[in-house]
Amino acid sequence: MRHLSVLALALVSTLALPALRAEEGMWTFDNLPLKQLKEKYAFEPGQAWIDHVRLSTLTLGGCTGSFVSADGLVVTNHHCTRGSLSRLSTKDRDLVKDGFVAMSRDQELKLPGLTYRTLMAMENVTGRVAKAVKPGLTEKQAGEARAKELDAIKAELEKQTGLTYDVVNLYQGGETWMYGFKVFKDIRLVAAPEIAVAAFGGDYDNFTYPRHDLDFSMVRVYENDKPYHPAHHLTWSTEGLKAGDLTFVVGHPGRTSRLQTFAQMKYDRDFGIPTYLKNADRTRALLEEYGKQDAEHARQVQTMILGVNNGAKANEGSLAGLKDAEAMKRIEATEKALKAAVAKDPKLAATTGKSWARVEQAMQLQKANLKESLYVGAARSATLGQALGLVRLAAQQELPVEKRLTEYRSEAGLKVLKTRLSGPAMGMMGQGANPELETLLFTRSLEDARRELGPQHPYIVAVLGGKTPAEVAKAAVEGTKLNDQAVRKDLIDGGQKAVAGSADPMIVLARKLEPILLAQRKKQDDVKAILEEHGARIAKARFAVYGKTLPPDATGTLRITYGAVATYPANGTLQQPFTTWAGLYDRHFGWGGNEAKDYTDWHLPQRWLDRMGKLDLKTHLNFSHAVDTTGGNSGSPVVNRKGELVGLLFDGNIEGNAGRYFYDEKVNRSVSVDAQAILEALVKVYDAPHLAAELTGK
Amino acid sequence: MRHLSVLALALVSTLALPALRAEEGMWTFDNLPLKQLKEKYAFEPGQAWIDHVRLSTLTLGGCTGSFVSADGLVVTNHHCTRGSLSRLSTKDRDLVKDGFVAMSRDQELKLPGLTYRTLMAMENVTGRVAKAVKPGLTEKQAGEARAKELDAIKAELEKQTGLTYDVVNLYQGGETWMYGFKVFKDIRLVAAPEIAVAAFGGDYDNFTYPRHDLDFSMVRVYENDKPYHPAHHLTWSTEGLKAGDLTFVVGHPGRTSRLQTFAQMKYDRDFGIPTYLKNADRTRALLEEYGKQDAEHARQVQTMILGVNNGAKANEGSLAGLKDAEAMKRIEATEKALKAAVAKDPKLAATTGKSWARVEQAMQLQKANLKESLYVGAARSATLGQALGLVRLAAQQELPVEKRLTEYRSEAGLKVLKTRLSGPAMGMMGQGANPELETLLFTRSLEDARRELGPQHPYIVAVLGGKTPAEVAKAAVEGTKLNDQAVRKDLIDGGQKAVAGSADPMIVLARKLEPILLAQRKKQDDVKAILEEHGARIAKARFAVYGKTLPPDATGTLRITYGAVATYPANGTLQQPFTTWAGLYDRHFGWGGNEAKDYTDWHLPQRWLDRMGKLDLKTHLNFSHAVDTTGGNSGSPVVNRKGELVGLLFDGNIEGNAGRYFYDEKVNRSVSVDAQAILEALVKVYDAPHLAAELTGK
Repeated sequence: MRHLSVLALALVSTLALPALRAEEGMWTFDNLPLKQLKEKYAFEPGQAWIDHVRLSTLTLGGCTGSFVSADGLVVTNHHCTRGSLSRLSTKDRDLVKDGFVAMSRDQELKLPGLTYRTLMAMENVTGRVAKAVKPGLTEKQAGEARAKELDAIKAELEKQTGLTYDVVNLYQGGETWMYGFKVFKDIRLVAAPEIAVAAFGGDYDNFTYPRHDLDFSMVRVYENDKPYHPAHHLTWSTEGLKAGDLTFVVGHPGRTSRLQTFAQMKYDRDFGIPTYLKNADRTRALLEEYGKQDAEHARQVQTMILGVNNGAKANEGSLAGLKDAEAMKRIEATEKALKAAVAKDPKLAATTGKSWARVEQAMQLQKANLKESLYVGAARSATLGQALGLVRLAAQQELPVEKRLTEYRSEAGLKVLKTRLSGPAMGMMGQGANPELETLLFTRSLEDARRELGPQHPYIVAVLGGKTPAEVAKAAVEGTKLNDQAVRKDLIDGGQKAVAGSADPMIVLARKLEPILLAQRKKQDDVKAILEEHGARIAKARFAVYGKTLPPDATGTLRITYGAVATYPANGTLQQPFTTWAGLYDRHFGWGGNEAKDYTDWHLPQRWLDRMGKLDLKTHLNFSHAVDTTGGNSGSPVVNRKGELVGLLFDGNIEGNAGRYFYDEKVNRSVSVDAQAILEALVKVYDAPHLAAELTGK
Repeated sequence: MRHLSVLALALVSTLALPALRAEEGMWTFDNLPLKQLKEKYAFEPGQAWIDHVRLSTLTLGGCTGSFVSADGLVVTNHHCTRGSLSRLSTKDRDLVKDGFVAMSRDQELKLPGLTYRTLMAMENVTGRVAKAVKPGLTEKQAGEARAKELDAIKAELEKQTGLTYDVVNLYQGGETWMYGFKVFKDIRLVAAPEIAVAAFGGDYDNFTYPRHDLDFSMVRVYENDKPYHPAHHLTWSTEGLKAGDLTFVVGHPGRTSRLQTFAQMKYDRDFGIPTYLKNADRTRALLEEYGKQDAEHARQVQTMILGVNNGAKANEGSLAGLKDAEAMKRIEATEKALKAAVAKDPKLAATTGKSWARVEQAMQLQKANLKESLYVGAARSATLGQALGLVRLAAQQELPVEKRLTEYRSEAGLKVLKTRLSGPAMGMMGQGANPELETLLFTRSLEDARRELGPQHPYIVAVLGGKTPAEVAKAAVEGTKLNDQAVRKDLIDGGQKAVAGSADPMIVLARKLEPILLAQRKKQDDVKAILEEHGARIAKARFAVYGKTLPPDATGTLRITYGAVATYPANGTLQQPFTTWAGLYDRHFGWGGNEAKDYTDWHLPQRWLDRMGKLDLKTHLNFSHAVDTTGGNSGSPVVNRKGELVGLLFDGNIEGNAGRYFYDEKVNRSVSVDAQAILEALVKVYDAPHLAAELTGK
């Protein structure tokens, strides 16, 4: 699923400048690619079209939704409201498993704690902010003047409009905008399918296509206890789509790393991702070693293995993209062109001329530090990880603020860390409550570290202290009391004195290791500082050279992207542009139906078997389209040329994971739920023609 | 499809010794893996079971079939009778496109030129042949004595039994057998589906899974103008299969290369296959360059591009297997074990001790010659290829037989070459009749060769003679008359004198190039000779050490292999064990149905749309099972523990293409048509309940 989640990919460098390719780009609403749309698709959206799709769209925080009726009905993905469904479920009413359909408005269920927002106004304040910075100010004074002016603009605008404003920086600070939102807090559940249908195929089918997921849910926005009547909502298309049809996706893509330099991408391709994958292979092998003992052990690690596989899957997709020689040539050529433009401009040359070389040096430092960064740590022991956190927290709090590591400087940051360290004993992959598994992972990881770093490495000397990995792991896991939340709470509250006096074997180990880990952290911070500084300089140069002809990287703000419903090559063949209900049943029965015991992710609710005969089996269920999206786009409305809703974006294909680095029109595809399938399910499976009528106005 | 076809893979070395893994092995009928079957599947087939499945099976020459009724009904793949269907088709009756069902026996259509054979008797004559070779004979005398004895045995057995006998060498000559066949010549067509259903998805879906092909056809064997009544035929299972069920495949796998050494596999992995794929990429790019001009040019090259893609697909599968670190480790360890056993035995050490090193040297020679072997040749010009053939034929015929290249030594060999050289101007990828395409391919290939070999290379000097590639290609393609079959016929008949006197520009070029190509051929032959000699020594040593505990490589003779219906990981998920009718319709409608214009390989005959509502959509159509098969197994009966027919093997997955080198239980799968689908189609789509009744005896 395309949640807005950051991949656990610490070894991969962060921050290319790709040549713009066909459908590439997540465009801001003030700067649509009108020329490309006209030339390639003979499509000219007027301002009314542009405003209409923007004003019909909502940000849900990490997901996107859209108004689809005049009475405030909102449609998004099932996985975007799954948390709410889970919180609202009780022993007797499992909304996740059984789904929910309100047969009348009074049955609609309030979902507490949600904030939905619509982007009502956008103000470019770049010039005004620049004017507020008078000549002759120091850098610090300039920053303060900028912040003050932004506060003033925000107050002014909020007073004028009644909206809530956010500062939005685009093009690495090249433009500053004020985005004004209308905020909704009263959100009520209207309809959600059973999770077995919404996430059919579970983690196995995640990121894959052909896909068969009815990943939608419907809520209604209320204001003053009455359904909200939005000025704009999307009309539900009853025409459907065919291959080649132009689609648009309006949503909130979270983050892309396309401004990385060629050197960073090569590093990720040759070292970063392969190391991540090797590490995932090792973790999987250890979990399998544990699981081989018997059925119960196997069950305990099944979900963890799926988690490892999903991370590996995403990274394998990225790696396949980075290994595409043609794409890499294109990226290199684009970088060369920017370098040449920078070299020609004396001012840019002075600030940025050496930035690419500096980034390359940073990558060499990162490479030199790769093995140590991998093995100097908590060695897959969740409890040692907690102990290291407790030891560092205590030590950092003793230091003056400016000498601390970044995340220990603010009170808010400290609060987050303390909450995490005092939380339930989950730890890495749920092992905290499973000493047997933790001992195995810890032992094997220490064995790996000893083999890779050598027995004389300070970390190995400190962690083993002359004992074997098995002895160290067993003693620490058996002796520790850190699984008790109260013990951790006391150590947090007791500060440096409590930590220094603790005889808990995990704390003892962590105290010995902390200086070595701090030195390792320093090396990583040095690399990060170079990458941030020179990454920003390159990004600014790019904006100076190309301006707004290139779209900004994704930043979680509202964007629009476009592309046609299209096949792509995979699995040795071409993937079909659409899947259908027939495909859902094929995969269900192909796995042996609900009788299948080994693999249950393709089971279907009985209702879906009973109603199979009522469905038009050729109705499109999901489709593949060449739009440029990323995590945060989940739930985004897919609209046609008329601005009507034709689908809901919910995932990308594996090959599209390379979209972190660049958009490849050959294989980068997004996967959406077809609006027709939702409509048909409401009527024929969920007996809710009233909702279908509200959507279609019939 | 799993035809018995040799892949165009000249650059890949030929002739490992894998550690035997679970379902590995294509076993001869005298040596079934009874121990493994008992231990893993608690299955003990009696001799009656073994004889029954053998005697029910037929070799069709490159394919396999089986008797499925007491009245001589035989079932095999559609692609195994496609040639016959095509030959029997007329302007008014297209049996390939429209299919065929005989509604009564008198409608059954005679298929001329076919020979079907059943293996009735197997005689191990190793001892008797050995006895015929008296001590003291020279190698030549021994060979003659062996041949004479085999002739005598054959005559004797044929007289005794009335069967036709073949000599069968197994274990690289370690065992010699006489296989006795009953031969059938009167074969009549009973039923065949439309090719759109039999080969649904066309070349695109070839080698892929999930698959949806009703790849079957039915013929009847006649004797004396009456249906033949075989003593044994397979009962058509009406139970069906489920995931995990044990299956057996009885058939005629053609060739595997599992006896290759580790060095050869590494060569194929690192150089052979990557070079093949690079070459395929280049060919594809050139064809696309040609096709980009307009729709008509695109149409001309579409099939050629699919052909290139299919070859690449098979090789990518093999390469993925060779890149599996775990599998390669296993192969290396197995080779080490055999080397150690050889080293311990003085006799084996004397003959074979140095063979691995010799093979490794040969691979180094091959690597050193790789670039030249790729660029010294016909440079993708089909006509230059013909000219080179004509020049060599004339020159070789001037030489005494013993000095000629192997294929020019026998009259039969010469006849084959002459027939090929005088045939229609098809040439490589149909370009013979398309001078525009040939000029482009020729020009670009000469440009590639000049860049890669350098302008001073004798080949470049000879072929260009100071001109540009474009000039040389244009002049030769425009000036040649070799597309005229009569011109080639005259050059063949006129021999060396006619060839030497020809002013045809392609012949002139070929005369200049022949000495350079001969020298290149000599280098390749040297490598081949080492590989053949030492490959045979290693194979003999293997038999000496392991005997019959390991199965022999595939040789086109009757074998049995076993494995369960099973999923495997691919496309980022797990593949479903079965596909269903629902999947066929999903893929059809997902591609836009019969209205789809760009991609027509998923169109369905109208009859299949009309009858969709009659079919039980959850009926299994194809399935994936972990059996060890290869080309030649097409049409092989898949039987269950009861010896009943449950399916027809018709393909393997892409990942299984590594089966050329080794069997990998994780991903190597065969794909079969489910017997239930055939039965249901006969009744519900083809209105042929009489055939279903003959199959099920109901």
